[in-house]
Amino acid sequence: MKGFFLTFEGPDGSGKSTQLQLLHTLLAEMGIESIVTREPGGTAIGDAVRGILLDPAYGEMKMETEILLYAASRAQHVHEVIMPALNEGKVVLCDRFVDASVAYQGSGLPGDLDAILSINRFATRQLVPDRTYMMMVSAEEGRGRLNARAGIHLDRIEARDLAYHQRVYEAFQRIAEKDASRVLKVDATKSIDEIHTNVKTDFLTYYHSIR
Amino acid sequence: MKGFFLTFEGPDGSGKSTQLQLLHTLLAEMGIESIVTREPGGTAIGDAVRGILLDPAYGEMKMETEILLYAASRAQHVHEVIMPALNEGKVVLCDRFVDASVAYQGSGLPGDLDAILSINRFATRQLVPDRTYMMMVSAEEGRGRLNARAGIHLDRIEARDLAYHQRVYEAFQRIAEKDASRVLKVDATKSIDEIHTNVKTDFLTYYHSIR
Repeated sequence: MKGFFLTFEGPDGSGKSTQLQLLHTLLAEMGIESIVTREPGGTAIGDAVRGILLDPAYGEMKMETEILLYAASRAQHVHEVIMPALNEGKVVLCDRFVDASVAYQGSGLPGDLDAILSINRFATRQLVPDRTYMMMVSAEEGRGRLNARAGIHLDRIEARDLAYHQRVYEAFQRIAEKDASRVLKVDATKSIDEIHTNVKTDFLTYYHSIR
Repeated sequence: MKGFFLTFEGPDGSGKSTQLQLLHTLLAEMGIESIVTREPGGTAIGDAVRGILLDPAYGEMKMETEILLYAASRAQHVHEVIMPALNEGKVVLCDRFVDASVAYQGSGLPGDLDAILSINRFATRQLVPDRTYMMMVSAEEGRGRLNARAGIHLDRIEARDLAYHQRVYEAFQRIAEKDASRVLKVDATKSIDEIHTNVKTDFLTYYHSIR
Protein backbone atom coordinates (compact mmCIF):
# COMPACT_ATOMS: atom_id res chain seq x y z
CA MET A 1 0.00 0.00 0.00
CA LYS A 2 1.30 3.46 -0.87
CA GLY A 3 2.35 5.64 2.08
CA PHE A 4 1.43 9.20 2.98
CA PHE A 5 3.36 12.28 2.05
CA LEU A 6 3.08 15.08 4.63
CA THR A 7 4.85 18.41 4.34
CA PHE A 8 5.42 21.17 6.88
CA GLU A 9 5.62 24.67 5.48
CA GLY A 10 5.76 28.22 6.79
CA PRO A 11 8.13 31.12 7.41
CA ASP A 12 11.53 30.69 9.06
CA GLY A 13 11.16 30.45 12.84
CA SER A 14 7.61 29.04 12.67
CA GLY A 15 8.48 25.88 14.60
CA LYS A 16 8.11 23.43 11.69
CA SER A 17 10.98 21.16 12.75
CA THR A 18 9.70 20.84 16.34
CA GLN A 19 6.21 19.83 15.16
CA LEU A 20 7.59 17.45 12.60
CA GLN A 21 9.60 15.64 15.29
CA LEU A 22 6.58 15.48 17.62
CA LEU A 23 4.45 13.89 14.89
CA HIS A 24 7.29 11.48 14.07
CA THR A 25 7.39 10.35 17.73
CA LEU A 26 3.60 9.97 17.82
CA LEU A 27 3.65 7.82 14.68
CA ALA A 28 6.37 5.60 16.18
CA GLU A 29 4.21 5.13 19.30
CA MET A 30 1.30 4.15 17.05
CA GLY A 31 3.49 1.64 15.21
CA ILE A 32 3.31 3.61 11.95
CA GLU A 33 6.65 3.66 10.15
CA SER A 34 7.69 7.18 9.13
CA ILE A 35 10.80 9.03 7.95
CA VAL A 36 11.78 12.62 8.60
CA THR A 37 13.49 14.58 5.85
CA ARG A 38 13.99 18.16 4.71
CA GLU A 39 14.60 20.51 1.82
CA PRO A 40 16.85 21.70 0.45
CA GLY A 41 18.90 18.59 1.15
CA GLY A 42 17.71 15.15 2.21
CA THR A 43 20.33 13.36 0.09
CA ALA A 44 24.13 13.60 -0.25
CA ILE A 45 23.74 15.48 -3.55
CA GLY A 46 20.94 17.63 -2.13
CA ASP A 47 23.06 18.53 0.89
CA ALA A 48 25.89 19.63 -1.43
CA VAL A 49 23.38 21.81 -3.33
CA ARG A 50 22.00 23.11 0.00
CA GLY A 51 25.54 24.20 0.92
CA ILE A 52 25.63 26.40 -2.21
CA LEU A 53 22.06 27.72 -1.80
CA LEU A 54 22.40 28.85 1.79
CA ASP A 55 26.01 30.09 1.80
CA PRO A 56 25.87 33.82 2.65
CA ALA A 57 29.06 34.27 0.57
CA TYR A 58 27.05 33.76 -2.66
CA GLY A 59 25.25 37.11 -2.56
CA GLU A 60 25.56 37.35 -6.35
CA MET A 61 23.21 34.38 -6.92
CA LYS A 62 20.52 35.16 -9.51
CA MET A 63 16.88 34.26 -8.81
CA GLU A 64 16.85 31.91 -11.84
CA THR A 65 19.85 30.05 -10.40
CA GLU A 66 18.20 29.82 -7.00
CA ILE A 67 14.96 28.42 -8.47
CA LEU A 68 16.86 25.80 -10.48
CA LEU A 69 19.10 24.75 -7.58
CA TYR A 70 16.10 24.24 -5.28
CA ALA A 71 14.44 22.19 -8.03
CA ALA A 72 17.61 20.12 -8.56
CA SER A 73 17.88 19.30 -4.86
CA ARG A 74 14.17 18.43 -4.87
CA ALA A 75 14.42 16.15 -7.93
CA GLN A 76 17.12 14.08 -6.26
CA HIS A 77 15.17 14.02 -3.00
CA VAL A 78 11.92 12.86 -4.62
CA HIS A 79 13.51 10.11 -6.69
CA GLU A 80 16.10 8.86 -4.19
CA VAL A 81 14.21 9.19 -0.86
CA ILE A 82 10.54 10.22 -0.95
CA MET A 83 9.14 8.00 -3.74
CA PRO A 84 10.94 4.83 -2.55
CA ALA A 85 9.67 5.40 1.04
CA LEU A 86 6.10 6.01 -0.19
CA ASN A 87 6.32 2.86 -2.32
CA GLU A 88 7.26 0.93 0.83
CA GLY A 89 4.09 2.25 2.50
CA LYS A 90 5.86 4.63 4.88
CA VAL A 91 4.72 8.06 6.04
CA VAL A 92 7.13 10.74 4.80
CA LEU A 93 7.38 13.88 6.97
CA CYS A 94 9.13 16.55 4.95
CA ASP A 95 10.32 19.96 6.15
CA ARG A 96 9.52 22.23 3.15
CA PHE A 97 8.62 21.26 -0.43
CA VAL A 98 7.28 22.97 -3.58
CA ASP A 99 5.14 25.46 -1.62
CA ALA A 100 8.35 26.91 -0.18
CA SER A 101 9.71 27.55 -3.68
CA VAL A 102 6.45 29.24 -4.67
CA ALA A 103 6.60 31.45 -1.56
CA TYR A 104 10.34 32.19 -1.36
CA GLN A 105 11.24 32.39 -5.06
CA GLY A 106 7.85 33.19 -6.58
CA SER A 107 7.31 36.27 -4.46
CA GLY A 108 10.64 37.68 -5.60
CA LEU A 109 10.23 38.13 -9.34
CA PRO A 110 6.79 38.87 -10.79
CA GLY A 111 5.83 36.54 -13.64
CA ASP A 112 8.11 33.71 -12.61
CA LEU A 113 5.43 31.71 -10.85
CA ASP A 114 4.40 29.71 -13.93
CA ALA A 115 8.05 28.85 -14.60
CA ILE A 116 8.55 27.75 -10.98
CA LEU A 117 5.49 25.50 -11.12
CA SER A 118 6.44 23.97 -14.45
CA ILE A 119 10.08 23.38 -13.40
CA ASN A 120 8.93 21.77 -10.17
CA ARG A 121 6.44 19.52 -11.98
CA PHE A 122 9.44 18.26 -13.97
CA ALA A 123 11.59 17.88 -10.83
CA THR A 124 8.97 15.98 -8.81
CA ARG A 125 7.22 14.04 -11.61
CA GLN A 126 4.12 15.86 -10.37
CA LEU A 127 4.25 14.46 -6.84
CA VAL A 128 1.92 16.48 -4.58
CA PRO A 129 1.74 16.12 -0.75
CA ASP A 130 -1.30 14.35 0.70
CA ARG A 131 -1.48 16.87 3.56
CA THR A 132 0.44 20.07 4.23
CA TYR A 133 0.69 21.75 7.64
CA MET A 134 1.25 25.45 7.07
CA MET A 135 2.68 26.95 10.26
CA MET A 136 1.75 30.61 10.18
CA VAL A 137 3.78 33.14 12.09
CA SER A 138 4.31 36.74 10.98
CA ALA A 139 7.61 37.75 9.42
CA GLU A 140 8.42 39.93 12.46
CA GLU A 141 7.76 37.17 14.98
CA GLY A 142 9.58 34.53 12.91
CA ARG A 143 12.61 36.82 12.69
CA GLY A 144 12.48 37.45 16.42
CA ARG A 145 12.47 33.71 17.13
CA LEU A 146 15.42 33.10 14.80
CA ASN A 147 17.41 35.87 16.46
CA ALA A 148 16.64 34.39 19.88
CA ARG A 149 18.31 31.07 18.99
CA ALA A 150 21.72 31.00 20.66
CA GLY A 151 24.71 31.47 18.36
CA ILE A 152 22.65 31.40 15.18
CA HIS A 153 24.05 32.75 11.91
CA LEU A 154 21.36 33.64 9.38
CA ASP A 155 21.75 31.85 6.04
CA ARG A 156 21.61 33.58 2.64
CA ILE A 157 17.79 33.39 2.44
CA GLU A 158 17.05 34.13 6.11
CA ALA A 159 19.29 37.20 5.90
CA ARG A 160 17.00 38.90 3.34
CA ASP A 161 15.16 41.98 4.60
CA LEU A 162 11.87 42.02 6.47
CA ALA A 163 9.91 43.30 3.44
CA TYR A 164 10.97 40.17 1.54
CA HIS A 165 9.90 37.93 4.42
CA GLN A 166 6.56 39.74 4.59
CA ARG A 167 5.95 38.92 0.90
CA VAL A 168 6.87 35.29 1.67
CA TYR A 169 4.33 35.25 4.52
CA GLU A 170 1.62 36.61 2.23
CA ALA A 171 2.52 34.03 -0.41
CA PHE A 172 2.08 31.22 2.14
CA GLN A 173 -1.33 32.69 3.04
CA ARG A 174 -2.36 32.67 -0.63
CA ILE A 175 -1.25 29.04 -1.07
CA ALA A 176 -3.25 27.97 2.00
CA GLU A 177 -6.38 29.71 0.67
CA LYS A 178 -5.99 28.50 -2.90
CA ASP A 179 -5.29 24.89 -1.94
CA ALA A 180 -7.49 24.57 1.15
CA SER A 181 -8.33 20.91 0.55
CA ARG A 182 -4.66 19.94 0.93
CA VAL A 183 -3.29 22.65 3.23
CA LEU A 184 -4.16 23.05 6.92
CA LYS A 185 -3.25 26.49 8.21
CA VAL A 186 -1.93 26.25 11.78
CA ASP A 187 -1.63 29.22 14.13
CA ALA A 188 2.05 28.89 15.06
CA THR A 189 1.83 31.52 17.82
CA LYS A 190 0.07 28.96 20.05
CA SER A 191 1.94 26.71 22.46
CA ILE A 192 3.91 23.73 21.15
CA ASP A 193 1.39 21.35 22.74
CA GLU A 194 -1.64 23.10 21.28
CA ILE A 195 -0.10 23.09 17.81
CA HIS A 196 0.81 19.41 18.12
CA THR A 197 -2.79 18.61 19.08
CA ASN A 198 -4.04 20.47 15.99
CA VAL A 199 -1.68 18.58 13.71
CA LYS A 200 -2.30 15.24 15.40
CA THR A 201 -6.09 15.57 15.17
CA ASP A 202 -5.92 16.48 11.52
CA PHE A 203 -3.50 13.68 10.69
CA LEU A 204 -5.55 11.03 12.48
CA THR A 205 -8.76 12.15 10.80
CA TYR A 206 -7.05 12.00 7.44
CA TYR A 207 -5.34 8.68 8.20
CA HIS A 208 -8.56 6.94 9.27
CA SER A 209 -10.50 8.38 6.34
CA ILE A 210 -8.04 6.72 3.95
CA ARG A 211 -7.17 3.42 5.66
CA MET B 1 27.07 47.87 -29.87
CA LYS B 2 26.14 44.37 -28.76
CA GLY B 3 28.91 41.76 -28.95
CA PHE B 4 28.95 38.29 -30.47
CA PHE B 5 28.20 35.07 -28.69
CA LEU B 6 30.14 32.09 -30.07
CA THR B 7 29.89 28.57 -28.67
CA PHE B 8 32.06 25.51 -29.24
CA GLU B 9 30.28 22.19 -28.99
CA GLY B 10 31.02 18.55 -29.66
CA PRO B 11 31.89 15.27 -27.94
CA ASP B 12 34.54 15.01 -25.23
CA GLY B 13 38.01 14.88 -26.75
CA SER B 14 36.99 16.82 -29.87
CA GLY B 15 39.54 19.58 -29.35
CA LYS B 16 37.06 22.37 -28.48
CA SER B 17 39.25 24.04 -25.88
CA THR B 18 42.31 24.16 -28.19
CA GLN B 19 40.28 25.80 -30.98
CA LEU B 20 38.64 28.22 -28.60
CA GLN B 21 42.04 29.40 -27.37
CA LEU B 22 43.37 29.76 -30.96
CA LEU B 23 40.38 31.94 -31.91
CA HIS B 24 40.83 33.97 -28.71
CA THR B 25 44.47 34.67 -29.67
CA LEU B 26 43.46 35.61 -33.23
CA LEU B 27 40.85 38.06 -31.95
CA ALA B 28 43.40 39.66 -29.63
CA GLU B 29 45.77 40.13 -32.60
CA MET B 30 42.93 41.78 -34.53
CA GLY B 31 42.21 44.11 -31.60
CA ILE B 32 38.80 42.54 -30.94
CA GLU B 33 38.09 42.19 -27.24
CA SER B 34 36.95 38.68 -26.29
CA ILE B 35 36.50 36.54 -23.22
CA VAL B 36 36.87 32.78 -22.87
CA THR B 37 34.51 30.90 -20.60
CA ARG B 38 33.06 27.42 -20.16
CA GLU B 39 30.16 25.34 -18.91
CA PRO B 40 29.38 23.97 -16.49
CA GLY B 41 31.12 26.65 -14.46
CA GLY B 42 32.27 30.08 -15.55
CA THR B 43 31.33 31.70 -12.20
CA ALA B 44 32.11 30.93 -8.54
CA ILE B 45 28.60 29.50 -8.05
CA GLY B 46 28.78 27.64 -11.37
CA ASP B 47 32.13 26.12 -10.45
CA ALA B 48 30.64 24.87 -7.17
CA VAL B 49 27.77 23.30 -9.15
CA ARG B 50 30.29 21.87 -11.65
CA GLY B 51 32.05 20.17 -8.74
CA ILE B 52 28.82 18.34 -7.88
CA LEU B 53 27.93 17.52 -11.51
CA LEU B 54 31.24 15.97 -12.48
CA ASP B 55 32.15 14.21 -9.21
CA PRO B 56 32.36 10.48 -10.01
CA ALA B 57 31.30 9.78 -6.39
CA TYR B 58 27.72 10.94 -7.20
CA GLY B 59 26.77 7.91 -9.29
CA GLU B 60 23.25 8.03 -7.82
CA MET B 61 22.45 11.37 -9.51
CA LYS B 62 19.09 11.27 -11.30
CA MET B 63 18.79 12.62 -14.85
CA GLU B 64 16.27 15.27 -13.66
CA THR B 65 18.81 16.50 -11.11
CA GLU B 66 21.56 16.60 -13.72
CA ILE B 67 19.39 18.61 -16.15
CA LEU B 68 18.47 21.14 -13.44
CA LEU B 69 22.03 21.52 -12.14
CA TYR B 70 23.36 22.22 -15.64
CA ALA B 71 20.58 24.77 -16.12
CA ALA B 72 21.35 26.40 -12.73
CA SER B 73 25.04 26.75 -13.57
CA ARG B 74 24.03 28.16 -16.97
CA ALA B 75 21.56 30.70 -15.51
CA GLN B 76 24.26 32.14 -13.26
CA HIS B 77 26.76 32.15 -16.14
CA VAL B 78 24.41 33.93 -18.56
CA HIS B 79 23.37 36.64 -16.11
CA GLU B 80 26.68 37.20 -14.34
CA VAL B 81 29.20 36.81 -17.20
CA ILE B 82 27.84 36.34 -20.74
CA MET B 83 25.13 39.04 -20.94
CA PRO B 84 27.28 41.73 -19.27
CA ALA B 85 30.18 41.00 -21.68
CA LEU B 86 27.85 41.08 -24.71
CA ASN B 87 26.38 44.35 -23.49
CA GLU B 88 29.92 45.78 -23.39
CA GLY B 89 30.34 44.78 -27.05
CA LYS B 90 32.75 41.92 -26.41
CA VAL B 91 32.99 38.60 -28.23
CA VAL B 92 32.16 35.73 -25.85
CA LEU B 93 33.81 32.38 -26.63
CA CYS B 94 32.05 29.70 -24.64
CA ASP B 95 33.03 26.04 -24.27
CA ARG B 96 29.61 24.25 -24.31
CA PHE B 97 26.12 25.74 -23.90
CA VAL B 98 22.48 24.60 -24.35
CA ASP B 99 23.32 22.25 -27.27
CA ALA B 100 25.44 20.20 -24.86
CA SER B 101 22.45 19.73 -22.53
CA VAL B 102 20.29 18.67 -25.46
CA ALA B 103 22.93 16.15 -26.57
CA TYR B 104 24.13 14.84 -23.19
CA GLN B 105 20.91 14.90 -21.17
CA GLY B 106 18.31 14.81 -23.97
CA SER B 107 19.70 11.62 -25.50
CA GLY B 108 19.45 9.84 -22.16
CA LEU B 109 15.74 9.87 -21.38
CA PRO B 110 13.21 9.83 -24.22
CA GLY B 111 10.59 12.53 -23.95
CA ASP B 112 12.67 14.89 -21.85
CA LEU B 113 13.80 17.07 -24.73
CA ASP B 114 10.89 19.53 -24.51
CA ALA B 115 11.48 19.89 -20.76
CA ILE B 116 15.20 20.51 -21.31
CA LEU B 117 14.49 23.19 -23.91
CA SER B 118 11.86 24.91 -21.79
CA ILE B 119 14.02 24.84 -18.62
CA ASN B 120 16.95 26.24 -20.57
CA ARG B 121 14.85 29.03 -22.10
CA PHE B 122 14.07 30.03 -18.51
CA ALA B 123 17.72 29.73 -17.45
CA THR B 124 19.12 31.78 -20.35
CA ARG B 125 16.26 34.23 -20.89
CA GLN B 126 16.20 32.77 -24.39
CA LEU B 127 19.77 33.76 -25.25
CA VAL B 128 20.91 31.88 -28.38
CA PRO B 129 24.51 31.85 -29.73
CA ASP B 130 25.22 33.89 -32.87
CA ARG B 131 27.48 31.11 -34.22
CA THR B 132 28.24 27.62 -32.95
CA TYR B 133 31.26 25.56 -33.99
CA MET B 134 30.33 21.90 -33.69
CA MET B 135 33.54 19.89 -33.52
CA MET B 136 32.65 16.42 -34.78
CA VAL B 137 34.69 13.42 -33.76
CA SER B 138 33.27 9.92 -33.29
CA ALA B 139 32.62 8.60 -29.79
CA GLU B 140 35.41 6.01 -30.23
CA GLU B 141 38.00 8.56 -31.36
CA GLY B 142 36.98 11.10 -28.70
CA ARG B 143 37.33 8.43 -26.02
CA GLY B 144 40.74 7.41 -27.41
CA ARG B 145 41.94 11.01 -27.24
CA LEU B 146 40.73 11.42 -23.64
CA ASN B 147 42.49 8.21 -22.61
CA ALA B 148 45.71 9.41 -24.27
CA ARG B 149 45.86 12.52 -22.05
CA ALA B 150 48.46 11.90 -19.38
CA GLY B 151 47.12 11.16 -15.90
CA ILE B 152 43.54 11.96 -16.77
CA HIS B 153 40.68 10.77 -14.58
CA LEU B 154 37.36 10.59 -16.37
CA ASP B 155 34.61 12.67 -14.76
CA ARG B 156 31.10 11.34 -13.99
CA ILE B 157 29.79 12.12 -17.50
CA GLU B 158 32.90 11.11 -19.45
CA ALA B 159 32.92 7.78 -17.60
CA ARG B 160 29.56 6.72 -19.12
CA ASP B 161 29.74 3.83 -21.61
CA LEU B 162 30.51 4.09 -25.31
CA ALA B 163 26.88 3.45 -26.34
CA TYR B 164 25.86 6.58 -24.38
CA HIS B 165 28.58 8.64 -26.05
CA GLN B 166 27.47 7.34 -29.45
CA ARG B 167 23.94 8.64 -28.76
CA VAL B 168 25.47 11.98 -27.75
CA TYR B 169 27.41 12.09 -31.05
CA GLU B 170 24.23 11.41 -33.01
CA ALA B 171 22.39 14.10 -31.05
CA PHE B 172 25.09 16.66 -31.96
CA GLN B 173 24.69 15.62 -35.63
CA ARG B 174 20.92 16.20 -35.43
CA ILE B 175 21.39 19.64 -33.84
CA ALA B 176 23.83 20.65 -36.60
CA GLU B 177 21.38 19.56 -39.31
CA LYS B 178 18.31 21.08 -37.66
CA ASP B 179 19.97 24.41 -36.93
CA ALA B 180 22.26 24.70 -39.94
CA SER B 181 21.99 28.51 -40.14
CA ARG B 182 23.59 28.85 -36.70
CA VAL B 183 25.78 25.76 -36.43
CA LEU B 184 28.93 25.09 -38.49
CA LYS B 185 29.91 21.44 -38.41
CA VAL B 186 33.71 21.09 -38.27
CA ASP B 187 35.57 17.87 -39.06
CA ALA B 188 37.58 17.54 -35.87
CA THR B 189 39.72 14.70 -37.22
CA LYS B 190 41.67 17.23 -39.32
CA SER B 191 44.87 18.92 -38.07
CA ILE B 192 44.65 21.68 -35.48
CA ASP B 193 45.77 24.22 -38.11
CA GLU B 194 43.20 23.12 -40.68
CA ILE B 195 40.40 23.27 -38.12
CA HIS B 196 41.52 26.71 -36.97
CA THR B 197 41.47 27.93 -40.58
CA ASN B 198 37.89 26.63 -40.97
CA VAL B 199 36.73 28.36 -37.81
CA LYS B 200 38.64 31.58 -38.57
CA THR B 201 37.25 31.84 -42.12
CA ASP B 202 33.72 31.32 -40.89
CA PHE B 203 34.07 33.80 -38.05
CA LEU B 204 35.56 36.53 -40.25
CA THR B 205 32.83 36.08 -42.89
CA TYR B 206 30.20 36.32 -40.19
CA TYR B 207 31.92 39.24 -38.45
CA HIS B 208 32.22 41.32 -41.63
CA SER B 209 28.66 40.52 -42.68
CA ILE B 210 27.40 42.05 -39.43
CA ARG B 211 29.76 44.98 -38.82
